[in-house]
Formats: sequence, C-alpha cells, structure tokens
Amino acid sequence: MFDKFQDECGVFGIFGHPEASNLTYLGLYALQHRGQESCGIVSSDGGNLHAHRGMGLVADVFRDESLFSRLCGSSSIGHVRYSTAGTSDLKNVQPIMVDYLRGSIAVAHNGNLVNAQEVRNELELSGSIFSTTSDTEVLVHLLARVQADSLAERVSEVLKVVRGAYSLVFLTETRLVAVRDPNGFRPLVLGKLDGAYVFASESCAFDLIEAEFIREVEPGEMIVISKDGLQSYHPFGKVTPTPCVFEHIYFARPDSIIFGRQVYGVRKEFGRVLAREFAVDADVVIPIPDSGVPAAIGYAEESGIPFQLGLIRNHYVGRTFIEPQQSIRHFGVKIKLNPVREVIEGKRVVVVDDSIVRGTTARKIIKMVRAAGAREIHMRISSPPTSFPCYYGIDTPTRKELISSSHTVEEINRYITSDSLGYLSLEGLREAVGDPSIGGGHFCDACFSGYYPVKFPRLKADSQLGLF
Amino acid sequence: MFDKFQDECGVFGIFGHPEASNLTYLGLYALQHRGQESCGIVSSDGGNLHAHRGMGLVADVFRDESLFSRLCGSSSIGHVRYSTAGTSDLKNVQPIMVDYLRGSIAVAHNGNLVNAQEVRNELELSGSIFSTTSDTEVLVHLLARVQADSLAERVSEVLKVVRGAYSLVFLTETRLVAVRDPNGFRPLVLGKLDGAYVFASESCAFDLIEAEFIREVEPGEMIVISKDGLQSYHPFGKVTPTPCVFEHIYFARPDSIIFGRQVYGVRKEFGRVLAREFAVDADVVIPIPDSGVPAAIGYAEESGIPFQLGLIRNHYVGRTFIEPQQSIRHFGVKIKLNPVREVIEGKRVVVVDDSIVRGTTARKIIKMVRAAGAREIHMRISSPPTSFPCYYGIDTPTRKELISSSHTVEEINRYITSDSLGYLSLEGLREAVGDPSIGGGHFCDACFSGYYPVKFPRLKADSQLGLF
Amino acid sequence: MFDKFQDECGVFGIFGHPEASNLTYLGLYALQHRGQESCGIVSSDGGNLHAHRGMGLVADVFRDESLFSRLCGSSSIGHVRYSTAGTSDLKNVQPIMVDYLRGSIAVAHNGNLVNAQEVRNELELSGSIFSTTSDTEVLVHLLARVQADSLAERVSEVLKVVRGAYSLVFLTETRLVAVRDPNGFRPLVLGKLDGAYVFASESCAFDLIEAEFIREVEPGEMIVISKDGLQSYHPFGKVTPTPCVFEHIYFARPDSIIFGRQVYGVRKEFGRVLAREFAVDADVVIPIPDSGVPAAIGYAEESGIPFQLGLIRNHYVGRTFIEPQQSIRHFGVKIKLNPVREVIEGKRVVVVDDSIVRGTTARKIIKMVRAAGAREIHMRISSPPTSFPCYYGIDTPTRKELISSSHTVEEINRYITSDSLGYLSLEGLREAVGDPSIGGGHFCDACFSGYYPVKFPRLKADSQLGLF
Amino acid sequence: MFDKFQDECGVFGIFGHPEASNLTYLGLYALQHRGQESCGIVSSDGGNLHAHRGMGLVADVFRDESLFSRLCGSSSIGHVRYSTAGTSDLKNVQPIMVDYLRGSIAVAHNGNLVNAQEVRNELELSGSIFSTTSDTEVLVHLLARVQADSLAERVSEVLKVVRGAYSLVFLTETRLVAVRDPNGFRPLVLGKLDGAYVFASESCAFDLIEAEFIREVEPGEMIVISKDGLQSYHPFGKVTPTPCVFEHIYFARPDSIIFGRQVYGVRKEFGRVLAREFAVDADVVIPIPDSGVPAAIGYAEESGIPFQLGLIRNHYVGRTFIEPQQSIRHFGVKIKLNPVREVIEGKRVVVVDDSIVRGTTARKIIKMVRAAGAREIHMRISSPPTSFPCYYGIDTPTRKELISSSHTVEEINRYITSDSLGYLSLEGLREAVGDPSIGGGHFCDACFSGYYPVKFPRLKADSQLGLF
Repeated sequence: MFDKFQDECGVFGIFGHPEASNLTYLGLYALQHRGQESCGIVSSDGGNLHAHRGMGLVADVFRDESLFSRLCGSSSIGHVRYSTAGTSDLKNVQPIMVDYLRGSIAVAHNGNLVNAQEVRNELELSGSIFSTTSDTEVLVHLLARVQADSLAERVSEVLKVVRGAYSLVFLTETRLVAVRDPNGFRPLVLGKLDGAYVFASESCAFDLIEAEFIREVEPGEMIVISKDGLQSYHPFGKVTPTPCVFEHIYFARPDSIIFGRQVYGVRKEFGRVLAREFAVDADVVIPIPDSGVPAAIGYAEESGIPFQLGLIRNHYVGRTFIEPQQSIRHFGVKIKLNPVREVIEGKRVVVVDDSIVRGTTARKIIKMVRAAGAREIHMRISSPPTSFPCYYGIDTPTRKELISSSHTVEEINRYITSDSLGYLSLEGLREAVGDPSIGGGHFCDACFSGYYPVKFPRLKADSQLGLF
Repeated sequence: MFDKFQDECGVFGIFGHPEASNLTYLGLYALQHRGQESCGIVSSDGGNLHAHRGMGLVADVFRDESLFSRLCGSSSIGHVRYSTAGTSDLKNVQPIMVDYLRGSIAVAHNGNLVNAQEVRNELELSGSIFSTTSDTEVLVHLLARVQADSLAERVSEVLKVVRGAYSLVFLTETRLVAVRDPNGFRPLVLGKLDGAYVFASESCAFDLIEAEFIREVEPGEMIVISKDGLQSYHPFGKVTPTPCVFEHIYFARPDSIIFGRQVYGVRKEFGRVLAREFAVDADVVIPIPDSGVPAAIGYAEESGIPFQLGLIRNHYVGRTFIEPQQSIRHFGVKIKLNPVREVIEGKRVVVVDDSIVRGTTARKIIKMVRAAGAREIHMRISSPPTSFPCYYGIDTPTRKELISSSHTVEEINRYITSDSLGYLSLEGLREAVGDPSIGGGHFCDACFSGYYPVKFPRLKADSQLGLF
Repeated sequence: MFDKFQDECGVFGIFGHPEASNLTYLGLYALQHRGQESCGIVSSDGGNLHAHRGMGLVADVFRDESLFSRLCGSSSIGHVRYSTAGTSDLKNVQPIMVDYLRGSIAVAHNGNLVNAQEVRNELELSGSIFSTTSDTEVLVHLLARVQADSLAERVSEVLKVVRGAYSLVFLTETRLVAVRDPNGFRPLVLGKLDGAYVFASESCAFDLIEAEFIREVEPGEMIVISKDGLQSYHPFGKVTPTPCVFEHIYFARPDSIIFGRQVYGVRKEFGRVLAREFAVDADVVIPIPDSGVPAAIGYAEESGIPFQLGLIRNHYVGRTFIEPQQSIRHFGVKIKLNPVREVIEGKRVVVVDDSIVRGTTARKIIKMVRAAGAREIHMRISSPPTSFPCYYGIDTPTRKELISSSHTVEEINRYITSDSLGYLSLEGLREAVGDPSIGGGHFCDACFSGYYPVKFPRLKADSQLGLF
Repeated sequence: MFDKFQDECGVFGIFGHPEASNLTYLGLYALQHRGQESCGIVSSDGGNLHAHRGMGLVADVFRDESLFSRLCGSSSIGHVRYSTAGTSDLKNVQPIMVDYLRGSIAVAHNGNLVNAQEVRNELELSGSIFSTTSDTEVLVHLLARVQADSLAERVSEVLKVVRGAYSLVFLTETRLVAVRDPNGFRPLVLGKLDGAYVFASESCAFDLIEAEFIREVEPGEMIVISKDGLQSYHPFGKVTPTPCVFEHIYFARPDSIIFGRQVYGVRKEFGRVLAREFAVDADVVIPIPDSGVPAAIGYAEESGIPFQLGLIRNHYVGRTFIEPQQSIRHFGVKIKLNPVREVIEGKRVVVVDDSIVRGTTARKIIKMVRAAGAREIHMRISSPPTSFPCYYGIDTPTRKELISSSHTVEEINRYITSDSLGYLSLEGLREAVGDPSIGGGHFCDACFSGYYPVKFPRLKADSQLGLF
C-alpha cells in the first residue's frame, strides 16, 4: 500500500534441534517484514522431508499446533516470500521441495537469478517440465542433472551455472546447506542454539529464539551441516563483495545487525548527515512511520529541532481494503496514517522518510499534513533518488515509474507539493554507511548510481548456454 | 498478549449517506484499537435492517466487496468489540439486532451496565428468553416491553431502568439514536459528512472519512436523527459528568480528540510531569511501544535526556502464537518486542510505559533490556498505580491480580527488577489532564482512587427491582 | 429438484445411553430423507446442554469426530429439517435451545402449528423477542411464561395453547419429553436400546442402531423420561386420530413401519389396486425411481406386465447444479434420470409414480421416455390428484400451483403428453391403506379430499387470543 | 464402504463448443460413478489452458458458477478419479497440466500403465523431476523429450514406450487428442453435439448433454481434433482387442452402451444364465442394490420367482461416517442397507449380487437378512469367482485378500453363512456377454481366469529400458 521498494524474501534454517520446525516458525515470525505474501517450512526427520506451505502471514499459515507434529524431525528450513520473479501464486510458495533420483531436496531462496530464463530455456529444450514460474526452480532441475558424488560438489556445480543474487538454504534428508552468492548481495547470518547450527536472513531472528550470533556467512561461502558437523567451502572464484545498501536504508529491521552494523544506528546516521546537507529553519521533525523513525531521530538530534510523532499509524490494516464505490475521496494513505493536529498546526514541519519511489504516497501525505495546519513542509529523504531498477532480488518498478529517473529534484518537489525537498547525497550515503565489514568490498548502490556489479542478459528467444 | 487494561468496544453510526455501510466499515477500521475480537455492521434501507457480523478484525470479517451491496441503505451502525460483560462468542457479537412488535431495531454499545444482571433476572422471571450473555441484551428486551408512543420516549424509559456506562447507537428502519450516559464515562462524538450526521467513539474515525467534527455528544444527551433532521434530548436528571481518565492514558488513539483535548498532547504532558516528579540521571529514554511513545517523548523533553526507539515492535504478530512444547524459554514478550542493543548497551536507561497491571510483562521487558547490556534501568509509569477494578466498561483483572492493590511501589520495583520505579502521582495526573471540557465535571479515576461515581450492586439471587 | 411434496422434518431422542449423541447422529442418518437442509443435535450431561447445528446433510454437519466429545452426556435429541414454516436459514436450524429462568431446554419439532402466528403476535405484544422465524419458537416462549411446578405440567399447559401437527422431543438437563399431537398427524415411535429409551420419527432409525421397536407414541400422548423411568400422560381431551396418509404414499422410507404397517407393502398394494382401476395393454412397467418402485412392482404383479428398471437414477447429484448459460436445453431432470433405451424402444410403457404436484417433471420424463423410443406411454399415479395444500407440516405449493386443483385428469394427460393417465381413486387409496392401527381413527387425506381435521386461522392483524 | 472392485477413472473431452467447460462438467456428473475421490477440468481458449481441480465430487469441486468463466474457451477435457496407481492426494488429481517447451498440454487418463515405474526410473536417471506419484505423469515427461514435428507423431512415439491400459484425452492450446490402447481395455466413445466432437468413457454422458452417439473409439485408434476437423490414426501394430468384461459386470452404468451392448441387458442376461445354472426352490428374489438389480430381475424372470426390493439403500450416506467409540456393534453395512421385514420374514430368499471380493460385506448382509426372518438364504453371484488381481486400471486387493483365490465355493458359502451359494460360470459369463462388437477380439477376464493379455514387469531396481 505504501510506495516502497519491496523486499523479496527471508530464509531460515536449523540443523540438529528437537524443536526444529517450531523454532523455524519463530524465526519466520521475526523475518515476516521481508515477505508477507506466503510462507512455508520443510523439515527432515532423517529419512523423509515434510512440508507445509501457504499463502498469507506466518501467523495465518501456521495457525494449527498439530502442524508441528507433522513437521517432525530435527532439521528444518523456512521461507517468507514477497514475489519478485514468478507471479504471486500458491505454486510459487517456497521452500520448493522435489523428489528426484537421489531422494528429496528442498530449497529456500532470497535473491534473484539474473540468468534464470536462459537456463530454463536450455532445460526445457532437453525435456524438463517446470511446475512453477519461479527463478528458483532451475536450481532443483540442475541438481537433478549434475552427476557429482557429494551434495557439496553437486550444489557447487549448479551454482556455477547461475548468476545473480542468492542467499540459499537447502535441506536434504541428512544435510543442510547454506550459501551466499559471491557478491553477497543479500544478508545471511550463522548462529548457534543449544548446540544446533542456525541460519537466518537477519540477526533479529536469532534474538527471538535466543540463539547466539556467530558470524555472517561470507560472500561466496557454502556451509554444509551434517551429523558430522560444519564444513565451509568457497567454490567460486574471487569476486569483490557488493552487499545491498538498501537493506540498511529500508528492508532490514532496525534491531538487526546487517553486514557488520546495527541498522538502527546506520539509519540515524543517515538522518544526521541529511540534516547537515539539507538544514532548514523549522519547528518540528516528524517521521513517516515506521520506517522513517530512526532517520528522523537522527535529523532531530543533529538539527536541534524537536522530534514528535506527528503521524499515527494504524497497525490493524489488512491486506485487502474496500473503498466506497462512488466516493471521490481516496482512502489509500489515510487508512494507514493520520496526523496529530496539535503537533502540526501552525508549525514549520520537517517530514522525514527513507525513500520516494513513484511520489504518489509522498504527495498524499504532504496534502494530509498541510490539511492538518502545517505552515511549511520540508521533505527530507534519507537516501539518494532511486533512478534505476534492481535486478538482484528487490521488487522495483520499471524506470518509467521511478519518479527520479525522469524528474529533477525540483520537479519532484513541485509534484509532491512540499515547500522544499532534500535527498541524502550518494556521497553522504557512502560516508554514513561506510564499507561492509567483511571481504573488503563496497555496497551495491545500483538503484541510485546505475552501476550494476553483475551483468544481466537482454533476454533473447535464441539464447543458448549450451549446457546439455 | 501485553499486560494492559483492555478497552471494550467502539461504536460508529451514520444517517443519510448513500455509502453508509462502507463508511461505517472505514470508521470501524479507525476504531479497531478499541476491540479486536469481533465486529459487525447493521444497515437500514428505510424498510428493512441488514446485518453482517463475525469474529475477527474488520479487515477479515469484511473481506468481500459484495457484502456492501447486501448492507444496502443510507443509514448504518457498527461496532468493534473486545469483551467485558459476556463471553467471547459469536452470539455476543454486536450490533445486536432483533425483530419485535414494532419492527426491527439494532444497538451497538460501548460501556457496561452495572445492574444488567438484576434487570435480566426480572425480565426472565416474567418470561423473557435471552439469546446472548451480553449485558446489552437487556436494552432490547426492555424496549420490547415499554409502551410509550415515540422511539425517543421508549429509549428514555429504558435507559432510566439501567445504570452504568453507555455510549450507544440504535438503528431502526427510519431512525438513528445516539446516547451517552449521564456520567459520560465513554466518549462519543458527533460529526457531519456530505450533509449526513455521523457518530463515533473517537474523532480519529472522522479524520479517516474526512467528516467534519461538530462536537461531543454531551453526558446525558440523547440525539435522534430521522429524515426530519436532528433532535436533542436530555432525558436524565442532572448528574456531575465523570469521563474516564484511562481513555487519555491508554485507550484512545493519540491522534483523537477526547473530552476536549488531543490525546497525544495529554500523554506527553503526563511524561513531562513524571519527569519532574521522578527525575533521574540517565543516558537515554526509551518507550515501550506503541503506547509509551508520547509520554517518553515528554519525559525526554522535560529531562533533556535523549529519546531513542530502543525497543522494536513486530507488528505482524497474530492472535495465536504457538510456543515450542519442550522449551524452557518463553517467547510471549520477545515475539512482540526486541531491543536495539546499540542504543542500550552500557547505558543508564529510562523505560517509559503508560501503566502496569500484573507486572509480569514489565518484569520480562526489564530482563530483556538488561540482557541487551543496560547498566541501569529506571522504570517510569505515566499513570498512578492501578489498584481498583473498573465496572464501567473496561476489562480489568480482579483486585487480587492487580499488583498495585497489594504491593508497595518498592515491592513492585523489586518484583520487576528495575533499579528504580516511579509512578505519576494522582495529583500529577489531575494537573496534567485538567478537567473535561464539557459539563463542569471531573475525570473518573476510580481505578487509581477507588472512588466509584456510580454504585454497582452486590449481586444477590433474590434481588428484586419490581419492574413488572 | 423433483416435483414432489416435501416432508419437513425428522426427530430423534435417546435417554440414558453412554453414547447418546453418536446414536442420535446415526438415527438422523436413517431419517435424512425427511429433511436435507439442516440438522442438529443437543445433548445433556445432566447439568448442561450442548449443541451442534448446521446447514447441510448429517454427513457434512457432523464430519468431525471430536464433535461427539463436545456433545457429551447420556441424553440427546436430534433433528433433520427441510423447511415448512420459517425460511431456510441457519437461525431456524433445530433443535432450538434456550436459557430461561429454570435453566436450559431444547426442542425438536416435526409438524406445523397452525396458530403459531397468532400466538406469536400475543407474545410480542407482551414483550417477547423472537430470534427465529420458525413456528416452533412459540413453544419455548410459552414455556418461559407458564408457572406450573413440574415440567410435565408446564409442557401440557403450553401444548393446550397451540394447535396443529406436532411430534416433539424436548430435552432438559435431566428429562426427555416426547409428545404427539391429539390427531397424531406425524409419526413417532418408541423403542429401547441397552436399557435406554429411544424415540424416532420412523422405525428405520431403530433398525440402524439395532434398537427394539416397542410401540407407537399414541396420538395425544406425552411421555416423560427421567432417571426414575418412563411416565405416560394424556393431557388432551379425546380427539379422533387422523394420521397423514402421505407418509405412506411418499414420505416414509419403505422399510419403516408407520401407523402400524410396513410402508413397502402399502405402496405395493397401491400399485395393485391401481392396476385393477386402470388396466392397460402394455409391454413393460417402469417406475420413476426411487419412490415409484414399490407401486410399480405391485402394478406389474397384478397386471402380469414385466417390471423393468427403465430409468436409471444418478445418486451423485448435489444440491447445486450449474446449467450452461446460453444453452436452450434444460438439464434439470436429465441430470437425475436417464432411460435405458433397450428396455423402452418400440415398447408400450407403463410409467408409475407416486404423485404429481405441478406436472412439470412428469412432462419432462415422458418426453425423455418418448425420445428413448417408447411406442405408447401410460402414466399411472399411485395416489389421487393432490388438489389441496397441507397445513400440517408438509411443504406444498399454493392451490394455484397444484395442477390437479384447476385441471381435469384429461387436461393433465394432455399437458404431460402421456397417452393415458390414471390416478388411484380416493376409495382405492382408502381400501389399500385401511385404518391406522391405533386409536380407532382414520387417515387424514385433506390434500386429496379438502377435508381438514384441524381448523387453521385466517390470519388477521387484530387477532387476539387474550393469553396474557 | 462396499466390498467391490473399484473402477478408477472416467474421462471426457469436447472440442469446438462455446460452452465446452460447462458441458464437460455435466459429462463428469454422468461419469461420477467411475471415480468419486477427485475431479478436474482443463479448458483451452485457443491460446492458454485453464484448470480447476479438487478433491471430492463434481458437485462439490464445481460449486461456484464463476468457475466457468475462468474455464473459458471452446475446448475442454475432464476427469473423475478413484485412485489406482498413485496415492489419493491433491497432487495426483487429473487432468495433469504442464508447461513445457512447446507450450501447455493437459492429459486425463483412464487405465493403468504397467511399465510406468520402469519408465519413471529411466526418466529420473536422466534428470526428470516428478511432481506426482501417478503413472500418468510419465506421459508428459516423455512428451517433453520426443522430438517429432507434429503432435500426432509425438503422442504416437510416447505411447509406443508405455504398455498397459489407457483411454486418454490430451488437450493443447489448439488440439484435442483421444487415444485408446491397442487392447482397448477401457471404453471410450465418440459423439457429436451442435457440430462439436465429444469423447466420453461411457455413452451415458452423451445422453445427459444430448450429444449424438457416433461410434466407439477403436482399440489402438488415435483421433486428433483441430480446427481442420477430425483425423484418425492407427499408430500401433495389430493386436487382438481384449476389452474389460468387468465394465459389463459392475463398473459401467446400466444405461450406458459399452463395447457395443447396453449394460442393463447384459446384466439381466447374466441373471438369466445364473438362474439356469443355479436354480433353487424359493419364494422371493431380492437384489443387493443398486448394482445387483438388473441381474436379480433377470434371475426372477427366468426362474419365475417374484422380484422384490427387499433391501432399501440409504443414498444420503457421506464419505465419512463416525462409529460410536465403545459400541460392539458395527454399522458399516447397516448405514447403507436396511431389510424390508415384510418381504423377507418366513421366506426362502434368493439374494443376487454382482460379485464378492473379500466376502465381509456379503456375510454381514446375510446376517441382516437372516435377522429379518428369512427361512433360507440362497446367494447368487452374477459373475465367476474373482481370484486374480487386475493390472489394467481396476483397484483390486492383493490375491491374499481375494476370498476366491484361496477358498472353494463351499468354504465361501460357509464363511458368508448362506444356505447355498452359486457363482455364474466362466462359460456362462462368456455365453451371456458374447464378443465385443468391434475388432474381432474377446473380453479380458483375467480377474477370473488369470489369463493376462498384456505382460507386466516384475519390478526390479536395476531395470533398464535404455530409453535415453
């Protein structure tokens, strides 16, 4: 409903714990912000895999306690999904689970494979039948074809065929594999609980289940867990890591530690730098909740202008919402946000948000704040203009829909009807966030800069990988 | 899940608008915080009443657009319900709608009738059959018995029999009646939209549908709307109004205007007074979200200690939540709240909340904040100790369960393991909130003071009102 | 879907058996032909009543085994319902269960109270609120008002107020009451199983649960079962019994013993008499299944013409059936019946059915049989023309819709396009069925003769029973 | 619930009719007796396939009229399923529909492929991933691999790989293909409706939709329908047809014309021959309904003993049925059948059924008839003893469970407690049914004779077809 980039997915895995699937359920609860369309859990009892998946929130799909006796066994992986590649449909719900020659395997994927369509074409040419429209399905078809002896080798071989962004957890009857692509676009962390190894997209999942945070899975690292313990592999050649900076801007939960830093502090720092770059004489700083709160606190601290919660968010809003048929009013934003008139009336207001995608929501919010009596409205965005789409697992509109790709800041300011508009500069962003803690790389900021660290194909009908 | 007093209900009504039931649905959306167990809408097309009611949130019960063609007509009332009197069950869902001699009538009730059981006994003795366990049902049975000619007179007669707290909207085929009890315990406001009259428990419902706020319905006022317009009555003798102060402390939304003042500002003022009453040398002020936020901002402003969002709330939590069976951990609070370690670690932390009921949640939160590295934890509560149960429409535990009714502040401080604990004083509360704007009364603070403005019966089997 | 009179209901009751509600479920299974719209069971555990009711067949409403642990206790009553009085709606599902001054009571009713509307008006005038549109609800309101000491006296008093057809079972915490109206319109039988008393509309329910058939409940008899055993009362003045002959013609199952005779044999006898009254030179006798089978066998035996199953019935047809939108064909009858061409082609066919209501189905079936190659079609109906509506618990159309009320047999013959048409004569019917075995009365044949044994009011708005 | 062989499936297809999917729904209604576990329809609008499938009866899965606007287009295939190969599970519901290199294809299958597991092993070895456990899925994987240019050639190639029983309908965006295996085990008929071609397992489906019966699809014939009309192919070498005689004994509806003869007449003839082979002095002939009715009529005609409907079947019985927990009684058969005492008491009764599988039901029915007062009970079975399992699409128990495979007729007579027992002889069966009308073959009677016309593999892990 809000005009935001959409994160795609969250993954979770645990190996060797008597309550594996219930802990996975808790982990998915903590990762729910990464995907609200569908979710699923696959467990292994050592001999068989067991699955439950459905459309909806974790709390809805796993409403029945008896599910956890069906999802038996001491290992389990889980997934929450928005939908990037593949339409939003029950058949695309993850983890994907298949039976093949060597038994059963399940996989949960956060990211996007940029050459999935090419690989799929090759596979179909040699007789494969796909049952989903998800990019992830090519992984299991490739796994059914490669011949290497060990699971580790087979997964390595498969991952050399695909390109793009992937934080993956695989589950077989006896093993759990966690992999992060060489660029490390998406986060993936390793922890420990009661002696069991745990993986999650974000550390907040560990906090909930009281698992100990060990370290990030490294970009390009593959970890295999079996009853013999943990084995780490680096099957790919050396690549400069380029984790996604938007995780720090918007996707990750503020209480998570991502790429070496706690998100809350990074966001506050964005607000501080923004306050230096775009100072203004004003009476009050208000965030667009919830995502704008840390940056607004940072802006307020740096500028000395008081912070207030001037917009109240209604947290009971469901996924569907029925507008009156004949009404000329539109309730889209108002159903979620309502101004506190007392805070705003007669004031010069700084409104802080993390990003603007199409500008439609910002325009409505500013209209709403103006109607509540604001004397001046100064919009401050804690990231640079988003001018380029993402191909690495974030659901962004096409360039045409990204207001920044075709309009100047001044034009956007006029469109959203603010009195002034300031975006954090790309330099300011880089200064505030620093470099990722691991592997000596830098953050991917392709959506701001247009510099894409991994090539993606122009899809042609005749593309030939020559795989088979 | 949180250890709070529970509000009971919210009501909404609209007369003379072509999209009456859809606007009622929007109004209930805005009032959802007042009751999440069930909801319902009854509409009138001038000749017949139409109803849809169900267990669950507004977004779930009204998921299907076609409902609104069934809920046809230009007048409508709605209700969201927690459950005070009467068990939580589909049969208790409001609005209650019945057929009787004079046609159909529906009623939605916020409050609690203290003599409902006595009246029910009388009615049953003379042959009435009840189909719910709700206190509200006595109203329709009384309406089926009184003989006066006009609806206004009949409603007046009925309300002279019952005692307690009620903000009510009635709907017949051709009329809408809104009444507030003489003490005015519960809020009820009057507005206008496109020429139609609108009623709601809180003004935030008007903000959403862009209705104009006209005024409060006065304590003891009965308003009848028909095609001939609005008629105001004052059927009761003069009583000193005693609106509920807890609406300002916790129940109402901060963006609502209640009893003449915007709630956000009142809560900030509670925090300011609290900072003066219980100052402490500390590094950071953090709220227990969402209800503690305004008071924490007030405390931070007054004390000069920086405000931070040190606890992150997971807003995706569903009504059911399945704990692992064998785990010794309890996830009850952690599923909802997670500390931001960076904000807390090594700091002297002031934690601000609006109230403590049993103390169990406060104890868990303090443990969690301590585990995140807090050096000192100073708990500050923006209301006095809640030592007495409420009989006017709030779901409070028995006295035995109210920790303040049997423990000193120092004992509570030890129980919840804070380093210090300060409650806003009753004088501080009164100073901060002032007097209600209308009718010259004062706030009911029975839950703190034990002074109950309306008597309630000690229920005896032999009680005889002699009604019939 | 067929053009038949509709029976209304079946009732069942059992007192003093450890598996009371499961046996009630089985009993309702056997009585399912008496009502397919809804069903329900209420049980008593000695202290409380427990209910489960729903729209649909017994197999669908009681699909979940755990229901029977909720429906605990050793006494139980049940009901299957078509719908005569009162619309088809969840709120009208029986048994009706209410709480009133003296505790809880449930009632299941087969029949129709002819003065229910008058009584309801009286009750509403003195303040009663009805929650269903069913005629049966007046019984519980009257029970809530009468003052006598014992349950037996109270039920007697109530039943003296109402008139019409009723086979009733009541259940309280500690008692089961079974009553049949003085005319004994509807069947009700008494049995015994493992020492427990059992009641059912038809004896086929006893066969299923292997209960011993004891006797009919007599017209005008009220039986009260408690832990002290069985008490029989005759609270009404002497009335000539007039059981419904249509139970023998169509409603009851052929394996049931009703009013002293097994239904199968009575129906065969109808066919035999019909063969004597309307002989014809033909090659084959075919029934319209299933209801026409016994009479067709009787006709074949008496006439010496071979019996064949020339129409096959599809027993998988559901309650809803979706016709193509643009098709000119109508599938209504064909979805249920299909001719066996080999049996019919080139033959002179006698088609036997039990009754014709509107004539629309008969016309379609004859068309279908003609299309299968029949040379001649002779329609034979094993009951007289149904010219008058029923007011005693059978769902009949208005007189205008009853083809026999306004058309001669010859006109009907032309309408349904048969070569000849013969109805069993009223004398033939009386000869075949004889008199009821108990009480010296005769059968009610009002739907054929227009002679109504119990008066029914012309409803007027000002009717006054002067009850209260 | 009854002790019968279970048919597996029915198929339907229509090409070139504006109401294709609604007519398919009607066709499946008529074929419901061939499979009650699940059903589905796939339609083509010329560019895309659309599917709806579900567990349950046709009336339940297609309850919503709006389904038919989703299942748009002028071609459609449908399937009803019991379950032979593959467990009973939503993922095995047919038609199977997949996307592959050349677009989309759906298939509905009646029969069983005896070498499916071998072919599946081969396919998995070369990388195929199966998503069902159904034998039918190998067909679509093979289709995805063969390289021929035309659909007709590709289907031919695929069918040369598999062996066994299959009546198949395939649907692509632009074509419908119907094939019957060279032995012609399962029926498949061709018809025409309003210019559109129609296929169905049995002719009763044509009767319902008023399609004209054209002819059987021949054993070994493949028919392709496209906008250019009908093309017939015979891709297989010459094989002696061996249609399944059990279709005439039990599976097909009596009103269907199968393998050239109407089923009703064949069954009556079985009864006549049986009466000659096993005459007995008796008072009444009663069928076990519904399947025993035609043979009982034949037996009665030939023997001159009167036919009566001595057992009444309850047609409201659902799929689930909850037995009392503590009862020693078993209600399994009684819930479905109840004797008419009057017909049976004191009589010598011939009971006619079509087959005995385990003998458990026959034993219970005879006990029930004895309890209703029968003086003698003579069991007559209108087919020979079923001593051998079927591998061609019928769900039969293992040999151990087939009572005839290990017991003499006299032993069975003692077990089921009849006074005498007579099975139709194999010669009598052959005499009564004659030879199939088409192709000069004879009926498969492997379940009686043990002569299997198509070999089936002893499954070995190392089997190698060398396909790829």
